[in-house]
Amino acid sequence: MTTASLTGQERKAPGRPRNAQADEAILRAVLDLLSEGQTVAAISIEAVAARAGVGKATIYRRWANKEALIIDAVAAMKGPLPALAGESVRDDLVTLIKANRSGHSRGYSKVTACLLPELLRDDSILEMYKGVVEPRRDLMRSVLRRGIETGELRDDLDIELTLLMLTGPSMMHGLFQWQPRVPDEGFVEKLVDGVLRGAAA
Amino acid sequence: MTTASLTGQERKAPGRPRNAQADEAILRAVLDLLSEGQTVAAISIEAVAARAGVGKATIYRRWANKEALIIDAVAAMKGPLPALAGESVRDDLVTLIKANRSGHSRGYSKVTACLLPELLRDDSILEMYKGVVEPRRDLMRSVLRRGIETGELRDDLDIELTLLMLTGPSMMHGLFQWQPRVPDEGFVEKLVDGVLRGAAA
Repeated sequence: MTTASLTGQERKAPGRPRNAQADEAILRAVLDLLSEGQTVAAISIEAVAARAGVGKATIYRRWANKEALIIDAVAAMKGPLPALAGESVRDDLVTLIKANRSGHSRGYSKVTACLLPELLRDDSILEMYKGVVEPRRDLMRSVLRRGIETGELRDDLDIELTLLMLTGPSMMHGLFQWQPRVPDEGFVEKLVDGVLRGAAA
Repeated sequence: MTTASLTGQERKAPGRPRNAQADEAILRAVLDLLSEGQTVAAISIEAVAARAGVGKATIYRRWANKEALIIDAVAAMKGPLPALAGESVRDDLVTLIKANRSGHSRGYSKVTACLLPELLRDDSILEMYKGVVEPRRDLMRSVLRRGIETGELRDDLDIELTLLMLTGPSMMHGLFQWQPRVPDEGFVEKLVDGVLRGAAA
């Protein structure tokens, strides 16, 4: 069994339940396969088991099917909902987008893109995915609504369009190595500032 | 052979070369398969031939491999580079983004998303894809540069970030049926205006 963990921990934590370690190895194997460009269709429970160094039965005891396992891996990659300072819209948006991108620094920037064909083809996995991402999107909506109320944001702001303007560039950023023209360093802050202040002179 | 065409023409045009009709049926078959959520890996020349109503040999005579065929289909979907009025940055950006999205109205909004895993895995198909999209992105860059020169855009504008802010939301828009909150009608104009004027009060 590999001891690599989703939190970047490389050594076996003393006293840690064996099940939690196996779970992490399994979730990490799924994310590794997806981030290598494997599609959901191409990923098998066998491949995940082999990569994680566990038996297939260990996976089947914990997850009903491959789709549920993959969605759990995405949820683990994204981590818990972040705490917001609640002071400025700008800072809360930066916090939320950075939390959404927390997998990028661990090499998982391609995971969502590799999931897309399956999400577009299979409504049941899409519903599960929605369960992971919609609470995050709702939190972003509430920050935008608060900004309109406090007068930080224009009162005719289209919240759904703004959500798309914040999340779309973040998802596309860094997907392709031939597009390194927007550096990682400071990207989220620049994106939020760009959305807030506009391009017009 | 199907007479459906990429230009939406449903009847056989008199005097039209048979090869051009076969090509269109083949390219359309590729786009139909991709827009159903099929991945590049899952699409075979056999499946394309069957869908297009042609023999496999007809495809192999024209395309060296599946990847070249798929990239040609994407190029056909996007159509030629649009002519720009060159008067306002806003109108030229609307024209360019609408041209990029011209496949959407024909049901092809999912094609790029379904290509992503392959583009992320295979550098050779990524290079071909780049040949299709980079001239479009360069045109958008030149419009933004012109806007800075004419004073329509702020002179400290980050062109690459702005490109991402225009193309990222456009790609994500309409991918998911559970996200119909930003209507198609007027979307491109609202996106460009949103990027230009900013969200801050």
